[in-house]
Amino acid sequence: MQDKVNLRAAFDSFSDHWNPRLAAELNGQHVRLAKLKGEFVWHAHENEDEMFFVVRGGLTIRLRDRNVTLNEGEFFVVPRGVEHLPIAEDEAWVMMFEPARTLNTGNVRNARTRTELDRLD
Amino acid sequence: MQDKVNLRAAFDSFSDHWNPRLAAELNGQHVRLAKLKGEFVWHAHENEDEMFFVVRGGLTIRLRDRNVTLNEGEFFVVPRGVEHLPIAEDEAWVMMFEPARTLNTGNVRNARTRTELDRLD
Repeated sequence: MQDKVNLRAAFDSFSDHWNPRLAAELNGQHVRLAKLKGEFVWHAHENEDEMFFVVRGGLTIRLRDRNVTLNEGEFFVVPRGVEHLPIAEDEAWVMMFEPARTLNTGNVRNARTRTELDRLD
Repeated sequence: MQDKVNLRAAFDSFSDHWNPRLAAELNGQHVRLAKLKGEFVWHAHENEDEMFFVVRGGLTIRLRDRNVTLNEGEFFVVPRGVEHLPIAEDEAWVMMFEPARTLNTGNVRNARTRTELDRLD
């Protein structure tokens, strides 16, 4: 059985950006925690919906036709197939909920692609 | 596309206990919000893992062999098949992740069973 997770302690346990940690796994889905800062890369996930929940700070999710601005305590689901670009002007702490197979950069491969996720201690 | 959800506003929009609201749906999973107060009922979900994330207040999840105490900002996954009894001495605001097919009372049917969930406005 997986231990309970304290978000504050979990986020305090790492400091790098755009490197999601695996916090929990259930029903073939991942709960991932990431610190975001700056601009990511435009990408889409062909078969995976992706939920972004802002634990601290603020996050803008640019879509091709509009921006979704998320503040602490807000979440948004990017539907499968929809191109998006996460941007955090200041550091944001984000919890993501998505299928375990989801690649962080979706249909794009670059230096920020993480094929293996570190699990939280 | 589903609108973003502000947790504070979402929880302010209802006041009854043990009546989960559907806040979002993705990848065949539900994000449900519920206010809990008092003791629920011992039950298990045969084929569904269930995640409890405490947004406000505190929640004790009794298992047959121990208790898991969750405070604000903490979450726990109850694995499929594991009997559990959620208890909130004072009102707790809880976000749940679980498969869309999950019945709130699992293998038990009683007055608290919700076969249809209200969707958040």
